[in-house]
Amino acid sequence: MRADIEFIPRQGPFRKGEGKVFVVIDVLRATTTIIEALSNGCTEVIPVVTVDEAFSLAKTLPGEETLIGGERGGLKVDGFDLGNSPREYTRDFVSGKRVVLTTTNGTKALQSVAGCEHVIVAGFTNAHGVVQRCTTLQADPVMVPAGKKGRFSLEDVVCGGMMMDLLEREGVALTDGARASRILYKAFAPNLLEMARTCEHGQELIRLGLDEDLAFCVRTNVSSCVPVFKKGSVRLD
Amino acid sequence: MRADIEFIPRQGPFRKGEGKVFVVIDVLRATTTIIEALSNGCTEVIPVVTVDEAFSLAKTLPGEETLIGGERGGLKVDGFDLGNSPREYTRDFVSGKRVVLTTTNGTKALQSVAGCEHVIVAGFTNAHGVVQRCTTLQADPVMVPAGKKGRFSLEDVVCGGMMMDLLEREGVALTDGARASRILYKAFAPNLLEMARTCEHGQELIRLGLDEDLAFCVRTNVSSCVPVFKKGSVRLD
Repeated sequence: MRADIEFIPRQGPFRKGEGKVFVVIDVLRATTTIIEALSNGCTEVIPVVTVDEAFSLAKTLPGEETLIGGERGGLKVDGFDLGNSPREYTRDFVSGKRVVLTTTNGTKALQSVAGCEHVIVAGFTNAHGVVQRCTTLQADPVMVPAGKKGRFSLEDVVCGGMMMDLLEREGVALTDGARASRILYKAFAPNLLEMARTCEHGQELIRLGLDEDLAFCVRTNVSSCVPVFKKGSVRLD
Repeated sequence: MRADIEFIPRQGPFRKGEGKVFVVIDVLRATTTIIEALSNGCTEVIPVVTVDEAFSLAKTLPGEETLIGGERGGLKVDGFDLGNSPREYTRDFVSGKRVVLTTTNGTKALQSVAGCEHVIVAGFTNAHGVVQRCTTLQADPVMVPAGKKGRFSLEDVVCGGMMMDLLEREGVALTDGARASRILYKAFAPNLLEMARTCEHGQELIRLGLDEDLAFCVRTNVSSCVPVFKKGSVRLD
């Protein structure tokens, strides 16, 4: 096994990815939100790219069990039930419900690997479980940071680096990129919250008054859920 | 001023890049070779993408003052005067001569920013001079690692990180990506040769018997030359 990481989001969909498991990471905040929702009894999350798609898809689904969530510019969209703060996705709110989700970067990253055999949703909160799943699958892990509007996202690469650190302990070989992400994780591991507060995306969330999300998103090993993206839907399998 | 780095080579040419200075880095070995050639009295280096282009362009130029150099698979191409080892580009050989150069990654990286106003060629050997030039220009530096067949190249990102370290000392702000490359540089700075020997590209060169190139390419601050790429040609301006 050999683990790799994409530093910058790719344009267009991935190739089929035989023998690989793609691990999509959008720490701030889409994948952390998905993990939280499914951990709290949400039945499935359906990621869509546009706000229009979210509304039209939701119309075709049973209203009493369907919620629409997500953000534009970091804030809840008018008419949505939920924003993109994982703290909103409580058991009271999401248990037994399906969520149609659209966010600026995370749902696009998921769509870029739609159709690949193995796609897992990861964040700091479930990184340990994701690594266990990767080693069980015996497929080569490829970390896919969601980035920020097509650019490098420090928090996602650092989270990928945390999983590289765990994978290396399991004897998995690392590419140069994977080694680099592990070094970045090691540099920030003593204070992940400080990393989240000083990175470009974190600064933007702080300006929007969403600083509490940062501490929530950098907690490690708090969920054993390993959400799987298959046939357009993210579920616990 | 704000400095950024592209982690993965872009497909297709850059946008115009107004107010920016692009710094192309292919430590192993194209940009180190260009710096060495120009430091030793070579009049200009003309980067071309294919071997055929190299031969046909050279035919149109005065034979006695034109050399063809470069590699495929790391080795000199049949019929070329020089390979891609900077150690070949001695004063005896290149002084007063023009070199038509084609390499697997470096010349492609240069073509990706052809047409931009400011394009500089950098490696560890001239990093200090390049940083000085960037601060004089007062344009936002964008490091462009050549990568390896479209993938992440550790040695180029670490070299970019060295320049980020110097730029930060000059008061230049760093993007998240620039910060990350600086951290990677700091991790490897105590032993750049070890980094070069263990990275994927270095391993390949060692297999080809080109290990002496590694030590040559990671020397720092040995050339004050700042090659500039303009109108298809790299020269000292």
